[in-house]
Amino acid sequence: MREFIVTAHTAALSHRFELNDLPGSAGRMDVLCRCVTAAFLTSHNLRDDVRVQFVLQNKFVVRFEGSELKRVNPDERSTGSLFQKVLERRHIAERTGDEFESTPGIYISARTLDDVLEKADRRGSVILLREDGTRLSEFKPPDHPIFVLSDHTSFEPEETERITAVADHHISISPRALHTHQSITIMHHYLDTNGYVRFVGNSE
Amino acid sequence: MREFIVTAHTAALSHRFELNDLPGSAGRMDVLCRCVTAAFLTSHNLRDDVRVQFVLQNKFVVRFEGSELKRVNPDERSTGSLFQKVLERRHIAERTGDEFESTPGIYISARTLDDVLEKADRRGSVILLREDGTRLSEFKPPDHPIFVLSDHTSFEPEETERITAVADHHISISPRALHTHQSITIMHHYLDTNGYVRFVGNSE
Repeated sequence: MREFIVTAHTAALSHRFELNDLPGSAGRMDVLCRCVTAAFLTSHNLRDDVRVQFVLQNKFVVRFEGSELKRVNPDERSTGSLFQKVLERRHIAERTGDEFESTPGIYISARTLDDVLEKADRRGSVILLREDGTRLSEFKPPDHPIFVLSDHTSFEPEETERITAVADHHISISPRALHTHQSITIMHHYLDTNGYVRFVGNSE
Repeated sequence: MREFIVTAHTAALSHRFELNDLPGSAGRMDVLCRCVTAAFLTSHNLRDDVRVQFVLQNKFVVRFEGSELKRVNPDERSTGSLFQKVLERRHIAERTGDEFESTPGIYISARTLDDVLEKADRRGSVILLREDGTRLSEFKPPDHPIFVLSDHTSFEPEETERITAVADHHISISPRALHTHQSITIMHHYLDTNGYVRFVGNSE
């Protein structure tokens, strides 16, 4: 099992955004759409051993579960439409306090980064990607890596503090500052090619 | 200098496609848009030492020149609009036989894969990405690598034949079949982190 947690600081909380304007009125929703493609899709295939959680403005968590996903296309617009569908359910999630499924494998809950980190810390090895971390080439992947990344903006200081408190590893993947989705692609490639043994137990 | 040549088998030759339907009526133009983002963009920055050439249905070549590009955004829709602008000039390119610039750093010409490969072979090391190639980790990057990739479909047999005839290296980058843009991200990362010395001479 591989997991990615992405903190989204500007992405829309409402489903009423324009699919034609993902980078604008949707608050850089395009960044999150590219993360979905990077995390789940290979050529004509879907990685089913992956979970991604987007923490939207520290108010809602949108979870994509690879083993349950049915239709994910690689283009940004179609993924944007999946975000619209799940955000439309945010009021139910807020009212009930529960997680709510919209389309297969995509859930929303009224949770915070703290909630997500607390559970992550119990089930796997939390890994913070940061410039001054261990070089990727010296990193021995754990069984159940949970990478924490930020969107197109940096982590806020309090986020870094919370993540650092639970992080088992600090990794630097590149001398260049990369896009979030590019970092996901590179981590997958590193795990695909470095004798990573797929975790086959119950991941929860 | 790093170069990428991408053979596009289905992408629209006309600018009259819908930006709302890049994967459909535009013939999987979304695939090419993602390649542009992967090739040129890092976080809030543009790689100026990169050239990408898309060979569209073996009839037109669209060239993106990193050192001249002005505005490239990471989202697919805005790159799709750059493709529209350059494809609108295809008749001029066809009529004159010359290369024609639309927006800064983006050119179109009525050329074929053979034309592109012939010039590439003279100025750098042509590298074919294929499943049975040398493992990436054993690959020592040349000064001026020119990677040849296919879009969402495989190379046609005659394309493989032409590329093999000029290829200096055959590389396998992953045990997984990846998207074209993901392969570009991974090649960049490999060159960024493996003591690659940027080519500083005249690259033409």
